[in-house]
Amino acid sequence: MCELLGMSANTPTDICFSFTGLSVRGGKTGPHTDGWGIAFYDGRACRAFHEAAPSAESAFAAFVRDYPIKSCVVVSHVRQATHGRVCLANTHPFVRELWGRHWCFAHNGKLPGVKDRPLGFYQPVGTTDSEHAFCWLLDAIRTRFPKPPRRPASLHRFVYGLAEELRGHGTFNMLLSDATHLFAYCTTKLCWITRRAPFGVARLLDTEVSVDFKQETTPNDIVTIVATQPLTRQEVWHRMAPGEMVVFREGLPAPVTWAASAPAD
Amino acid sequence: MCELLGMSANTPTDICFSFTGLSVRGGKTGPHTDGWGIAFYDGRACRAFHEAAPSAESAFAAFVRDYPIKSCVVVSHVRQATHGRVCLANTHPFVRELWGRHWCFAHNGKLPGVKDRPLGFYQPVGTTDSEHAFCWLLDAIRTRFPKPPRRPASLHRFVYGLAEELRGHGTFNMLLSDATHLFAYCTTKLCWITRRAPFGVARLLDTEVSVDFKQETTPNDIVTIVATQPLTRQEVWHRMAPGEMVVFREGLPAPVTWAASAPAD
Repeated sequence: MCELLGMSANTPTDICFSFTGLSVRGGKTGPHTDGWGIAFYDGRACRAFHEAAPSAESAFAAFVRDYPIKSCVVVSHVRQATHGRVCLANTHPFVRELWGRHWCFAHNGKLPGVKDRPLGFYQPVGTTDSEHAFCWLLDAIRTRFPKPPRRPASLHRFVYGLAEELRGHGTFNMLLSDATHLFAYCTTKLCWITRRAPFGVARLLDTEVSVDFKQETTPNDIVTIVATQPLTRQEVWHRMAPGEMVVFREGLPAPVTWAASAPAD
Repeated sequence: MCELLGMSANTPTDICFSFTGLSVRGGKTGPHTDGWGIAFYDGRACRAFHEAAPSAESAFAAFVRDYPIKSCVVVSHVRQATHGRVCLANTHPFVRELWGRHWCFAHNGKLPGVKDRPLGFYQPVGTTDSEHAFCWLLDAIRTRFPKPPRRPASLHRFVYGLAEELRGHGTFNMLLSDATHLFAYCTTKLCWITRRAPFGVARLLDTEVSVDFKQETTPNDIVTIVATQPLTRQEVWHRMAPGEMVVFREGLPAPVTWAASAPAD
């Protein structure tokens, strides 16, 4: 399987601390040795770094860990290949353009049969079931909404329906972003934590690193981290339920959490 | 204006030497301080690094200069903004997917009026005339060839026609890749050099760095570098003519060079 990491913040924030925790799981405290990737948004554009090698031993991942790229939305992934060989094209997150924005997607799980779903506009570059699912999902959004819908909730409800459909194939833990929102959908494992004033000290579970967020933040900062498993000790992470989707914007969860009995529009 | 750098090789090759020469032009020996980017292909996928800051002073560009990423096709750019503000979304090269491959594009020049050309499938994420031209060009290729044409020459001729049309707007020096070919089109300034056995020593023009390619290569390696201006001293670079296009594959120029009197298919 793989592990996911996402961030939503109301002010550009670096993710060095959390990425340090994730990347040691890529070959040291976790078995996810088949590649890693991370995408940082800057406005409607994102830049993504990928490598088809273990993050725990990579000089490139070490550089990204120490180079504070500030962003309001980040999506990251460490891979343990279950479907598709180990190569750059199969390394998450995947990126495509829709509505003049980069969309970014990372997935944890297996989706047997998903490749039978026909694709239209977007074609996979690699051979993973994950990228096929992403192309199918973006095709569906593009067809339903040739332009961004006026009400964000319409998009959220539609994405939730697509995620539910993909979940029918198997395991679908997903992080998705349209540059503004961070969509987190859970089939088996996904959790999140929101940090805001008063900030305290956090300690990573996987390595002897701690940070005093008071020193790194201003009192108005709000930052949510989403991860497959909690990254820190002595903090309370919200564990998501199967079939639950939370949409984050500017560091906060949207007032509506989408679940099996999702509200009508 | 800006400067372009491209590579086509028959074996995965790093571009550290040439990128060292280009990146000092981003703020030290050249005025291109508004960002830099570089895309490395690995099969049908590419990974691109961008930064909206001068490459000559960037720790990130320094890392890329020293980290030998081996690739058969590379496209790079240092930017001096003439159109569109300085931000990540406006930093070349631009990347989109077509036919399940990443296409990559970088441009030097100005194209007044190009934004009046209507777009279909691909929308710009930033505000440059360059990205608009790229979206228009890919739209046209997608419409003409819903699937890759059987004969590469058909694609080459079509791309040449599009480049000629874009040149009607102003200055259009372009590097474009479909993961296999490197298209180089010249309006004003572009030159290239092919290195193969017997290899010798090359010295950068912009900084005191030299390399002995004999130590870095095997006798079968063939590598072409394309650049806005020659990067080395004591080597002979081919200067391209206005309206000329050369298509490189596996390090070598295609037998046909496209020029004002392009051959029929």
